[in-house]
Amino acid sequence: MPNRFAGLLAALLPLAAFAAAADEPRTSARVASPDARVAVEVTTDNEGRASYAVSRDGRPVIAPSRLGMMFTDAPKFERNLAIVDQRTRTHDEHWELPWGERRHMRDHHNELRVTLAEHSGPKRRFDVVFRVFDDGIGFRYDIPAQPGLERLSIAEELTEFAVADAATAWWIPAFEWNREEYLYHRTPVEQVGQAQTPITLRTDGGLHLSIHEAALVDYSGMNLARVDGRRFRAALTPGIGAAKVVVAAPFATPWRTIQIGERAGDLVESQLILNLNAPNALGDVSWVRPMKYVGIWWEMHLDRRSWASGPKHGATTEHAIRHIDFAAANGFGGVLVEGWNVGWDGDWFGNGETFSFTTPYPDFDIEAVTRHARAQGVTLIGHHETSGHAGHYEAQLEDAMALYGRLGVQAVKTGYVADAGQAKVTGDDGRLHYAWHEGQAMVRHHQRVVEAAARHRISVNPHEPVKDTGLRRTWPNLVTREGARGMEYNAWGQPGNPPGHEATLVYTRLLAGPMDFTPGIFGMETRSGTPMSTTLAKQLALYVVIHSPLQMAADLLEHYESRPEAFQFVRDVPVDWEDTRAPAGEVGTFAVIARRARGGDDWYLGGVTDDDARVVAVALDFLDPARRYTAQIYRDGEGAGWRTDPHALIIETREVGAGDTLELAMASGGGQAVRFVAH
Amino acid sequence: MPNRFAGLLAALLPLAAFAAAADEPRTSARVASPDARVAVEVTTDNEGRASYAVSRDGRPVIAPSRLGMMFTDAPKFERNLAIVDQRTRTHDEHWELPWGERRHMRDHHNELRVTLAEHSGPKRRFDVVFRVFDDGIGFRYDIPAQPGLERLSIAEELTEFAVADAATAWWIPAFEWNREEYLYHRTPVEQVGQAQTPITLRTDGGLHLSIHEAALVDYSGMNLARVDGRRFRAALTPGIGAAKVVVAAPFATPWRTIQIGERAGDLVESQLILNLNAPNALGDVSWVRPMKYVGIWWEMHLDRRSWASGPKHGATTEHAIRHIDFAAANGFGGVLVEGWNVGWDGDWFGNGETFSFTTPYPDFDIEAVTRHARAQGVTLIGHHETSGHAGHYEAQLEDAMALYGRLGVQAVKTGYVADAGQAKVTGDDGRLHYAWHEGQAMVRHHQRVVEAAARHRISVNPHEPVKDTGLRRTWPNLVTREGARGMEYNAWGQPGNPPGHEATLVYTRLLAGPMDFTPGIFGMETRSGTPMSTTLAKQLALYVVIHSPLQMAADLLEHYESRPEAFQFVRDVPVDWEDTRAPAGEVGTFAVIARRARGGDDWYLGGVTDDDARVVAVALDFLDPARRYTAQIYRDGEGAGWRTDPHALIIETREVGAGDTLELAMASGGGQAVRFVAH
Repeated sequence: MPNRFAGLLAALLPLAAFAAAADEPRTSARVASPDARVAVEVTTDNEGRASYAVSRDGRPVIAPSRLGMMFTDAPKFERNLAIVDQRTRTHDEHWELPWGERRHMRDHHNELRVTLAEHSGPKRRFDVVFRVFDDGIGFRYDIPAQPGLERLSIAEELTEFAVADAATAWWIPAFEWNREEYLYHRTPVEQVGQAQTPITLRTDGGLHLSIHEAALVDYSGMNLARVDGRRFRAALTPGIGAAKVVVAAPFATPWRTIQIGERAGDLVESQLILNLNAPNALGDVSWVRPMKYVGIWWEMHLDRRSWASGPKHGATTEHAIRHIDFAAANGFGGVLVEGWNVGWDGDWFGNGETFSFTTPYPDFDIEAVTRHARAQGVTLIGHHETSGHAGHYEAQLEDAMALYGRLGVQAVKTGYVADAGQAKVTGDDGRLHYAWHEGQAMVRHHQRVVEAAARHRISVNPHEPVKDTGLRRTWPNLVTREGARGMEYNAWGQPGNPPGHEATLVYTRLLAGPMDFTPGIFGMETRSGTPMSTTLAKQLALYVVIHSPLQMAADLLEHYESRPEAFQFVRDVPVDWEDTRAPAGEVGTFAVIARRARGGDDWYLGGVTDDDARVVAVALDFLDPARRYTAQIYRDGEGAGWRTDPHALIIETREVGAGDTLELAMASGGGQAVRFVAH
Repeated sequence: MPNRFAGLLAALLPLAAFAAAADEPRTSARVASPDARVAVEVTTDNEGRASYAVSRDGRPVIAPSRLGMMFTDAPKFERNLAIVDQRTRTHDEHWELPWGERRHMRDHHNELRVTLAEHSGPKRRFDVVFRVFDDGIGFRYDIPAQPGLERLSIAEELTEFAVADAATAWWIPAFEWNREEYLYHRTPVEQVGQAQTPITLRTDGGLHLSIHEAALVDYSGMNLARVDGRRFRAALTPGIGAAKVVVAAPFATPWRTIQIGERAGDLVESQLILNLNAPNALGDVSWVRPMKYVGIWWEMHLDRRSWASGPKHGATTEHAIRHIDFAAANGFGGVLVEGWNVGWDGDWFGNGETFSFTTPYPDFDIEAVTRHARAQGVTLIGHHETSGHAGHYEAQLEDAMALYGRLGVQAVKTGYVADAGQAKVTGDDGRLHYAWHEGQAMVRHHQRVVEAAARHRISVNPHEPVKDTGLRRTWPNLVTREGARGMEYNAWGQPGNPPGHEATLVYTRLLAGPMDFTPGIFGMETRSGTPMSTTLAKQLALYVVIHSPLQMAADLLEHYESRPEAFQFVRDVPVDWEDTRAPAGEVGTFAVIARRARGGDDWYLGGVTDDDARVVAVALDFLDPARRYTAQIYRDGEGAGWRTDPHALIIETREVGAGDTLELAMASGGGQAVRFVAH
């Protein structure tokens, strides 16, 4: 190639000066966290390329990593940039989560707004806004309205993440056939391919990092493509046109986030993702009701009942009423009924146009069922399986939500079962387009669903969803979602989730937000009768370990009825919390989570382990030192283990205080659940 | 997610049968190479997903790897497939290359054509055609015309390449800012990110593999995205619309190729890529003239002359005539003149619309220059730098080629200097689109250029090209191209090409086809006066090691004039060959290539090494055992080495025969060139 330098820069600069300046930034901007330990530096190099770098205690965490953007109809914004303006501000705000893993939130950060302007070519100006917290950073492109830049057709972000230190990565692949339901890979960071976010890293120096995004609104989800070494580049999920994203200026992208902790648990306790989302846009959300629920669901996965109509049909009036009565008797708020609506009888997979969202099967009297539920203070959890055909669903969306609204249905589980890239949306051209589950079109679709649901005071629980980026702060009726391998894989077996799965989820998928994992399987056998890799104590622990405001007791009712002592913990455990701590744990190995009941004094603790039995000493210093507590302990019993005796459970009590240490003994594939009843 | 199995397959199959069949292919097809050592097996699994696998001597080379395709406007072709037909045939054909690395080619393979049909949904039928050679395989999707499939909007190929064994990979990244001009990474295969092809692998078991493609016509270039472990998936270069490729059926994709060799040199000697291209489509190509050339070029990279007009302008009438006279005096066929046409005076980088391809600068009398050249049997090598603006170039293409045709210009070097993704094409909508250099639009563009040039009997040498996939067989005027870091990086320095660069190219980029690397720098200093990582002997060796039918003597003429003894080898060495051998070498370390002159009896040998000096014993068994030869040896002299004394050169002769062994001694960064003059 002809040398661009010779053609351009060398013409502008004496050669010696050029050579000397080759590695020196021309300009830079810097901001540090409130505690001054985390710092971001933005620089431009001699070609006018902009980079940011992140350090902690003066040591690099993210090496210089490029910023920029490519377009389908305009030159990329990447070279010939200068920092023409920089502004900093400090922000310290206390706010409340209406429901969630804690009530009191603090958004304390320093912000740097850098204006990058092209000094040749189109002379565009982009702001990049960095918010630096004590536990990480977020940054976004903020593109002001400007002449000639009314519409952005974004081909790709050029945002990089160059991990400074050698690290172990836990990740799931992007752009594969499934959506998010993979077992996590654990590899050196240099062996990551194309990964979804959040991706979790543990550096050889011991830091824990999570790279993710916050506030994914009207944009395509970000994945990470490793370029070489430890350097990743944003890889946006494809859109349905030539561009991955099309937006009008002014526009701000989602926040790209890098959370930094010393302990794995620091990532769990971080409030960064929610802090980077916009405040509640719905106003009064007292109608959003966190609850436990049972449902007509697990028995389909065991192949005892069917979604389809016929002799095995699960969603019958009678069966629903049985579940409603059970829920009411046990203080649960909801009953999920899948397979209630017509559309399940043919080859529905990938053929979502078969579904009606307003037509029950004849053996499901939705009026009677919901009337019976309302009378007992229980709600039907509605179900809208779209098989990924978002366009078909949207055409019925208002009618579907209005029906549920009229019937007092307080929450709906939506589903998008289709292979990755095989969702279907209706484009602006009125034509059907195949789409990725996390592309801009689907992000917009989910937004429309959440808003339609809100109009009818309905909460939403999407399965096969867009990943969680903290939107529940802005739309508190977006209460939970799936987005990982849930319990149903254990029904199918071949293979089910391995014993370390939940201890991996805690530090990966669950960093994004609540998950409708559907715990509480007391039967603990796959549909072919092989053991699931869990103990009963672990099933109880999952109610604390995995936060979900809609939390299922997923097993067959008779399994609960036959084990009332164990079931007592499921009855007791809240789904809404005042505070959350992660006192112990290692990614993929074990996890211990403690939470205080929202509006209460009791604490709950859950511990889960992988294939290795272990004893974890947990300091109870999260308890109120002014109180004593009765610890109701549900632990793996003698000989317990997922291969040996999953049902061996010991329930015992101890008097404890904040100064005590709990020796948390967990069997292979096991766990422990504790309720600390405050005196 | 609801279980698709429960909804679909379990409804069709008894559960026990389903469980038993989970990992068993339903159907399979198999074909082996003529020598029966390489075999391909195609299978479909219980979900109707099709895979192929490659073995050699019964050991897996490519583990089962998926086949399929995604579309923007139709469901993917990937599941519910059955092998409904399979046909095999044997092919053994001898054919001639009109010019190239050897004359006599043999296309000997067994072919398997598998028809995959969907047994549900759209019920489409795709053929996959495998050709299995003794040294590897090629396969392509061949999509017949069928109702409802008139037009294919391909979102992605789902073709996988799962490397069976642990291996070392040599690769350059895809979708980065540059096009193909990277230094090669050498990593474990598990550390490859997104890679361009050809990618070279050396398995721990010692096999050498090259994964690439052949006959890239009307399609987007294939890259490889590593999914996990050693499993890659095709990642097509983006197109300019929502689809990466849009074609009408019937259509056959380029061949996906996997070359297999025991020695690294086996890959060099493989004829597989050319065999998978279509025969000569141009008829009489006697006007395609392989030649050496000098040019007004290196001095621009040294910053002594300029492309732009003004006092430093290189492309003056006088300077061109000086070069023509030099070429004629030394038996060279051509003179490249860059900067001859208006457009170089502003910021041309990324602004190709500044160029006129028919308007010389006033100080370049193109009529006089070409008249002078023709009179001496020399041709001007034309130059069309587009700065990536293919649309602008195409608008002038016919006029530009007609001008050259009228002036007797026999070859044109084209250039597409723009960052990756920043080429510009005019879409069917008449609008400007930013494009990737290897997307379908640019592939089509290059095709139009080659065909326009052929109409005027002009050969084409694209720089910043589409990668070579063997199209020179079909369009023999597509003689050479760039597509890797060439010699100019050594002019710029900071940093230049490392000493092992050429020994890497031989087994990577050069497997694709000829390269206009522009060797022969006798000065061996960067423009800032630092040493290049080469010796003079290596510069001579490159004329044999790197095949290019347009082969430059790239240095300043005065450097050749001051070293006539060394220059004699450049004068002698052919550019067109009867045969080519790769008797010794290891990827990235050293390479020894031997070639026999087209239509002659003399052999030429070149050896290059990396930073390590070494002595390589080369058996001369490629020589005709019935003859004796005088070996004219150009070797690194006493104390030679790129850091120490790059000019130390010893020229000596020896009498040798086919039974002899040559001890090829090479200094650090050095090499050796030998002409074997047949008696």
